[in-house]
Amino acid sequence: MWVEHPLYTQAMFALDRVHVLAPQHPEWRDREPFKAVLTNDTAAIAKFSESDWAEIVFATHSGMSQEAFLEIVRQWLTTAKHPRFKRLYSELVYQPMLEVMRYLRASGFKTWFVTGGGQDFVRSYAQKVYGVPPEQVVGSSVATKYEITNGKPEIMRLPNLFFDDDHAGKALGIDLFIGKRPYAAFGNSTGDQQMLEWTGAGGGMRLKMLVYHDDPQREYAYGPAGGLPDTNVGTFSQPLMDEAKAKGWIVISMKNDWKRIFSFNE
Amino acid sequence: MWVEHPLYTQAMFALDRVHVLAPQHPEWRDREPFKAVLTNDTAAIAKFSESDWAEIVFATHSGMSQEAFLEIVRQWLTTAKHPRFKRLYSELVYQPMLEVMRYLRASGFKTWFVTGGGQDFVRSYAQKVYGVPPEQVVGSSVATKYEITNGKPEIMRLPNLFFDDDHAGKALGIDLFIGKRPYAAFGNSTGDQQMLEWTGAGGGMRLKMLVYHDDPQREYAYGPAGGLPDTNVGTFSQPLMDEAKAKGWIVISMKNDWKRIFSFNE
Repeated sequence: MWVEHPLYTQAMFALDRVHVLAPQHPEWRDREPFKAVLTNDTAAIAKFSESDWAEIVFATHSGMSQEAFLEIVRQWLTTAKHPRFKRLYSELVYQPMLEVMRYLRASGFKTWFVTGGGQDFVRSYAQKVYGVPPEQVVGSSVATKYEITNGKPEIMRLPNLFFDDDHAGKALGIDLFIGKRPYAAFGNSTGDQQMLEWTGAGGGMRLKMLVYHDDPQREYAYGPAGGLPDTNVGTFSQPLMDEAKAKGWIVISMKNDWKRIFSFNE
Repeated sequence: MWVEHPLYTQAMFALDRVHVLAPQHPEWRDREPFKAVLTNDTAAIAKFSESDWAEIVFATHSGMSQEAFLEIVRQWLTTAKHPRFKRLYSELVYQPMLEVMRYLRASGFKTWFVTGGGQDFVRSYAQKVYGVPPEQVVGSSVATKYEITNGKPEIMRLPNLFFDDDHAGKALGIDLFIGKRPYAAFGNSTGDQQMLEWTGAGGGMRLKMLVYHDDPQREYAYGPAGGLPDTNVGTFSQPLMDEAKAKGWIVISMKNDWKRIFSFNE
């Protein structure tokens, strides 16, 4: 749905938040993974493990109410710019995906986000950017707690994972949040494999499509499928490509199939 | 939304399933809580603890695919009858609740179920009985697992709780599944307290209503609020009644405020 390189947008947000929150955490100056972030050590950041990222995400995505978190994300999105394109992240949205969603909605379908990213992160802009309301965004989430502070109920974000909406979790998330099998599913990485399998296993005609990032000029090129670089961000593996071919899933070449990638392309 | 006595409909379903599954579980004949169910010991069943019910629910609600479970519930609902009213459970739906939901939908609102009961149980009939699609049913759920059997992906139900959509869980469930605060919320028990608090804490006008079961002639009378019997099924506590009065939540008397309770009433 939008640019994943050099890092997922939500990862860029998390890194920026580490800088913003650093004055309240003097201990971060000498502690990894925070130290690497605060010293802008991009080589170290590129090698962060899953647990490094988890530590950064929980430190920056919890400890506040849901309302406060959504407001922090919204504020960030109005100012943060992509390092290469020098544009707001909300402009780095794939025009053909917006068009297919509009087309499907005009044809009587409901359109949903099913994201490995943070459910609340994506909910903060999905209505404005994609025309998708919060209740149609399924994603990964932290646990929450109901608290009454000074007589006012708040939903507080806790520093632990509640639901991991990726790989098999995407099929489970669709069942949990929607309770229906999709008629069309679109992905771009190995995290989407089970969602497409689950969609394809339904009766009748089902559309399964994968976007393949093979356009280094207008966007990025990464795989490792088809010999493109293996960047660890948005992995499209060769086995996924093989399964797509074997099962008749349609692989979209960004380079050859998309006339415009972003709305600002000529 | 529908009759809770002498037991919740889903509890009646679970008890029936124990009988159906008993031949595959000879050990249940000598083991509580199953023995009480198989010998129809209603006095013992009335005293089941939360953990007795959990054992019965997991034994009857897991171990199959989601599709198979939904089909089992649908089949049961076409034949099982309420012991007092001798009608299908799907007929024992409150007519004024159907009317208010239709009215709200006609006025541009989306209507949701937020139930302490099983999300999938309620999803199996919500569209047909209430006009509410599966994706607008939020409830308690078991954990699930994605499995490929003979090349076919299945979502399997596991014997452990994933989400407890009751009490504070109702406010959290609304946030998790919907991501918006309700403009109107309707409840009938202490499990709805936080949902109504959360609704009322939103800005502008918010409608909070509680149905009070005080009509033993046409339905049932239970509390213990207002001195009605404390039946442990659908508890409406005196503190809930006090909070409703203090906060201006509207308490609906089934006896005095509802002209018809069921569509088949005159």
